[in-house]
Amino acid sequence: MVSSSSDPLATRHSTVSRENVREEDALKVLSAYLADDMRACNQAIIDRMQSSVPLIPQLGAHLVAAGGKRLRPLLTLASARLCGYQPSAEQQRHVGLAACVEFIHTATLLHDDVVDESTLRRGMASANALFGNKSSVLVGDFLFARSFQLMTADGSLKVMAILSEASATIAEGEVLQMSTQNDLSTPIERYLEVIHGKTAALFAAACRVGAVVAEQSEKEELALEAYGTNLGMAFQLVDDALDYAADQQVLGKTIGDDLREGKITLPVLAAYDAGTEEERVFWKRVIEDNEQTDADLPRALDIIARTDAIKTTLKRAERYAHKAAEALEVFPDSELKALLVKTVLYTVNRVN
Amino acid sequence: MVSSSSDPLATRHSTVSRENVREEDALKVLSAYLADDMRACNQAIIDRMQSSVPLIPQLGAHLVAAGGKRLRPLLTLASARLCGYQPSAEQQRHVGLAACVEFIHTATLLHDDVVDESTLRRGMASANALFGNKSSVLVGDFLFARSFQLMTADGSLKVMAILSEASATIAEGEVLQMSTQNDLSTPIERYLEVIHGKTAALFAAACRVGAVVAEQSEKEELALEAYGTNLGMAFQLVDDALDYAADQQVLGKTIGDDLREGKITLPVLAAYDAGTEEERVFWKRVIEDNEQTDADLPRALDIIARTDAIKTTLKRAERYAHKAAEALEVFPDSELKALLVKTVLYTVNRVN
Repeated sequence: MVSSSSDPLATRHSTVSRENVREEDALKVLSAYLADDMRACNQAIIDRMQSSVPLIPQLGAHLVAAGGKRLRPLLTLASARLCGYQPSAEQQRHVGLAACVEFIHTATLLHDDVVDESTLRRGMASANALFGNKSSVLVGDFLFARSFQLMTADGSLKVMAILSEASATIAEGEVLQMSTQNDLSTPIERYLEVIHGKTAALFAAACRVGAVVAEQSEKEELALEAYGTNLGMAFQLVDDALDYAADQQVLGKTIGDDLREGKITLPVLAAYDAGTEEERVFWKRVIEDNEQTDADLPRALDIIARTDAIKTTLKRAERYAHKAAEALEVFPDSELKALLVKTVLYTVNRVN
Repeated sequence: MVSSSSDPLATRHSTVSRENVREEDALKVLSAYLADDMRACNQAIIDRMQSSVPLIPQLGAHLVAAGGKRLRPLLTLASARLCGYQPSAEQQRHVGLAACVEFIHTATLLHDDVVDESTLRRGMASANALFGNKSSVLVGDFLFARSFQLMTADGSLKVMAILSEASATIAEGEVLQMSTQNDLSTPIERYLEVIHGKTAALFAAACRVGAVVAEQSEKEELALEAYGTNLGMAFQLVDDALDYAADQQVLGKTIGDDLREGKITLPVLAAYDAGTEEERVFWKRVIEDNEQTDADLPRALDIIARTDAIKTTLKRAERYAHKAAEALEVFPDSELKALLVKTVLYTVNRVN
């Protein structure tokens, strides 16, 4: 069931689905469908954030308060349930692993905030702005270590292999992103490799471990991994579009962050590719030479609009979205499966 | 066999041992004794540092070139051998875990360099000075993830529990250290908790996993853990003394780093405790208010000398050193055991 919404981000039309469905509600509906699991997961997150060192739960509370969509743990919980996982009274493996996935994600966010010198995260002051870079690096390390303790407590070598490999891939993606910074000659393939590493790899692992705890065959594992990978790619492409399209007041995201940092994303690559000679000179000054004035963001937005660069980006996101939905075909139809498909639609329809 | 040495750091007299032994050679002798294991470990470190992202092995090569004593992996290798571990042709568990321990250590060093804005590490430019803070945070994350992949490859849940707990404790120790910074009212107990977390916990884990791979009883595990803990405490106390006593040219360590950062270490706490009213005003300005001039380091060194604060610090280090040596009493006498005792002596006699 999809409830109506007064969400100011309400999608005016879906670019993937032909139905007039309010995709923006999909995550809320999925969360509500898995409400008990989500509550248990939030509790696990709070419990395992505890430490005898006061600053750790303090900073943790800030992150928990900031909330976020908890998309990644939701994927673990939903994947496990889609595979028919029935937790025992003693052990809720999917909950522990969902918390673990969120810890890995939060650790990378904390480190990413330090690296990118962001000042806003989910509309609130970022942790590093409030607590300092030091705290962000060290508390990130703590959460990373805690995530491995949660895996160890789960006790499955297979799960550990999946999540530790994802952790390494995330770090590689972030390093690769750094080395493409300010470089307009970055091929699209390298950009795609970056977003696979920094985003899709954890989405994929979050989904796959759900199949593992449900003791499904490799077919289901790989199907959920494919769902996660493609969803993650679509999600990051849309995120990169939003950085040139979102309303800061509404999204709580600083528009133009990527431009300021000289980050190479598809909207920029597409606009550069389709731009005039004069526009290329502009991009080179702003992105490569990092010489920026206040007038540059409006100009960038103009060029991006004229060259349809957002549309190019979203089209690619839709291709991944379709693949994500297709990957679920191996599973029998169910309410949960339909919600996971709607989650894909939500992801690509955050912007239009 | 202990060879003679022309090492400029040659200890003039031992404060622990009554013998006229060249303790400074202990690590070299231990390394030589385990030469095959150390070679295999160095190779594992280089192999597992590989990545399709070029910057990672580049920065890795810088760290490998910087060398360092490889004390922590040496402890894992020596502990395993002390417990009679015989690797098979297919699996050298002690080697993989020694590399794992070094990765955890290197990751914390990289993050510590970012945090502390150090410019020198082992006498070479620190990684963050050369490659930037960004790289240090992200490559540290990569190494941390790799360490968990190495644990997963080893496949022992017990080992994972020991090393993942140590990783969390290290992060807690670093956060606690940060919250004691600039605070002269820090009790000695808290300072000891900090150095236990940031240093002794990994020494302890490095030793204990050696007993685990050799499938020894808990008695040997706990004995090696106690050896590691006490050796680590002694090691860090001496390190903190060296920051006010070392010759920068010789050690490749920036003397006075801790003072500049307002770091609370035992030399400062002891000097503050034993100081005159006027000296306390000095410490408050320099450490708490962080108002420093070029004349402050010489003045700090004078006060530390007058109040015997280095001696106080080293005495405490010696107590831990004795405990470390005692912990090995459960093992039958052997050349390796004697070398591990000498390693303790080396640790406390780096300064005199």
